[in-house]
Amino acid sequence: MTSPSKLQELINQRLQELNFSGDPATLYEPIRYMMALGGKRIRPVLVLMGTELFKGDLKQALSAATGIEVFHNFTLLHDDIMDNAPLRRAMPTVHAKWNSNIAILSGDAMFVKACQLMMDVPDHAVRKVMEVFNRTALEVCEGQQLDMDFETEPSVNIDRYLDMIRLKTAVLVGCSLEVGAIIAGADDKAAQHLYDFGVNLGIAFQLQDDILDVYGDAAKFGKQVGGDIIANKKTLLLLYAIASASGDLSVELANSLLMPVDAANAYQKVEAVKQIYNRLNVREYAETQMQSSYELALTHLDAIVASQEEKTALRELAKSLMIREH
Amino acid sequence: MTSPSKLQELINQRLQELNFSGDPATLYEPIRYMMALGGKRIRPVLVLMGTELFKGDLKQALSAATGIEVFHNFTLLHDDIMDNAPLRRAMPTVHAKWNSNIAILSGDAMFVKACQLMMDVPDHAVRKVMEVFNRTALEVCEGQQLDMDFETEPSVNIDRYLDMIRLKTAVLVGCSLEVGAIIAGADDKAAQHLYDFGVNLGIAFQLQDDILDVYGDAAKFGKQVGGDIIANKKTLLLLYAIASASGDLSVELANSLLMPVDAANAYQKVEAVKQIYNRLNVREYAETQMQSSYELALTHLDAIVASQEEKTALRELAKSLMIREH
Repeated sequence: MTSPSKLQELINQRLQELNFSGDPATLYEPIRYMMALGGKRIRPVLVLMGTELFKGDLKQALSAATGIEVFHNFTLLHDDIMDNAPLRRAMPTVHAKWNSNIAILSGDAMFVKACQLMMDVPDHAVRKVMEVFNRTALEVCEGQQLDMDFETEPSVNIDRYLDMIRLKTAVLVGCSLEVGAIIAGADDKAAQHLYDFGVNLGIAFQLQDDILDVYGDAAKFGKQVGGDIIANKKTLLLLYAIASASGDLSVELANSLLMPVDAANAYQKVEAVKQIYNRLNVREYAETQMQSSYELALTHLDAIVASQEEKTALRELAKSLMIREH
Repeated sequence: MTSPSKLQELINQRLQELNFSGDPATLYEPIRYMMALGGKRIRPVLVLMGTELFKGDLKQALSAATGIEVFHNFTLLHDDIMDNAPLRRAMPTVHAKWNSNIAILSGDAMFVKACQLMMDVPDHAVRKVMEVFNRTALEVCEGQQLDMDFETEPSVNIDRYLDMIRLKTAVLVGCSLEVGAIIAGADDKAAQHLYDFGVNLGIAFQLQDDILDVYGDAAKFGKQVGGDIIANKKTLLLLYAIASASGDLSVELANSLLMPVDAANAYQKVEAVKQIYNRLNVREYAETQMQSSYELALTHLDAIVASQEEKTALRELAKSLMIREH
């Protein structure tokens, strides 16, 4: 078994070898910049762990692993344009540093690069890998579109929200693990269980994100606590609060959401909404939902017939993603 | 042999079957809209002609053919955002009808759809088809970036311009034919000749476009004659004029280019630049270049050992693309 940090090192090494240079520089420099912003490389590590789980050869999975990471970064690059985000990892986003046109086009080129890397798998795996990858890529687009739609939709129900985070975030986690399993030659049933483990883990992870945004420790969270509240983002917490508040509390919530926010009163708005959340036991509800996705993930892992040692590695990684503070 | 119009019909039929529906509608409706704008479907017809040339089965090539068309429309969709174009085929562009974010994301989804269709080829062809397709897709991005770069580059030389149109336009024509050939099981050498035929034909076609923009018959051209001149677009004609003008003519050209344009004096500017072109024999130069690409294309077609009947079909199609008036 290879430790996650060693796997991460393998990924970063391969990403460096890939280099992403080419002509014109205006197309390739933003790609290099984006890939150099770093990150925990969780998805490609999961590809490699999926391969190791079924005693596959890591070398055969390394291209696809980096392909998943390039794809993920492509989605971030285009999302940043759509969200008009100025910063990513405390650095200017590509569209802010260059311009939107360059960001659109270098994103497109990254997607092609990702496809090239995904094709670099053993013959037996090509069709299955590309099928899972393409289906997932389409779902990620659907998830991003739903997320944008929700901004202007007057009422979003919780099931639809859960579906959105499944598509936007969770399926790529499942896809990463399944691609690794396919490369190692896992049977379809085992690969499916590993996919389902990943998807449910991904959902739990995103719900954890929603919770930490409100209840995280400001010192450890790394971004502004309450950012979702300030932006009136329709997270699980807010949607549950809207659905369960009634009478005066409902009016109070509506008024809090309508508070115009500037630097001076942002804290006040966050506190007002948080108090309402507390009275509605929103945190408990969200944690129960998160816990139930997490446990569902583990039942899928349990259902896989594979090396206990490797399953333990995945279980540990899952746990570390859940008991994080940022 | 199947006639090009019959092939076009097969493509349109398959595109209708594909339908491109899905949830959320905000993602899929723009895709359907874009694909329904129509067009001559030249690239997918070339895929099928490439397959017929080597006595392959059209049914096996139909998905890849439509994949090429979806990819082509994806590039148009994203190009329209970057060019801030209000209209395509006399209809509002996707970003104008919806918005830029929807246009970015539905474009991304179209690219995924294209990849799925390209994978739907016989096993023997998968790797080769995807290799040509991905390489070409990347080159098309490079070409579009070069085209954008040229807008602000003070001096563009003719070789670099020819390289730009090769990447932006011509390689996809070559790719279409080669993909068809690969599906039919053509040998590498024959497939390469067919690719080179397509690339050189594509270059000739684009040069023809540059020429028609200035010397086309307004009634038949379908768009404003002189549009490139009004926009100071660095076409082969302008680049050659800049390179070959000297003394007073050079000053005159510079002044003409600097003429600010409104509806009233657009015609005046076009005429002024055209007169300079005439004095420099720009049209003759451009036609010689076009002719030489066209003839180079034909030598590659001649070099292929294949059915004469099918080669005649490709030769006729090439000719019809060259003696067009719009």
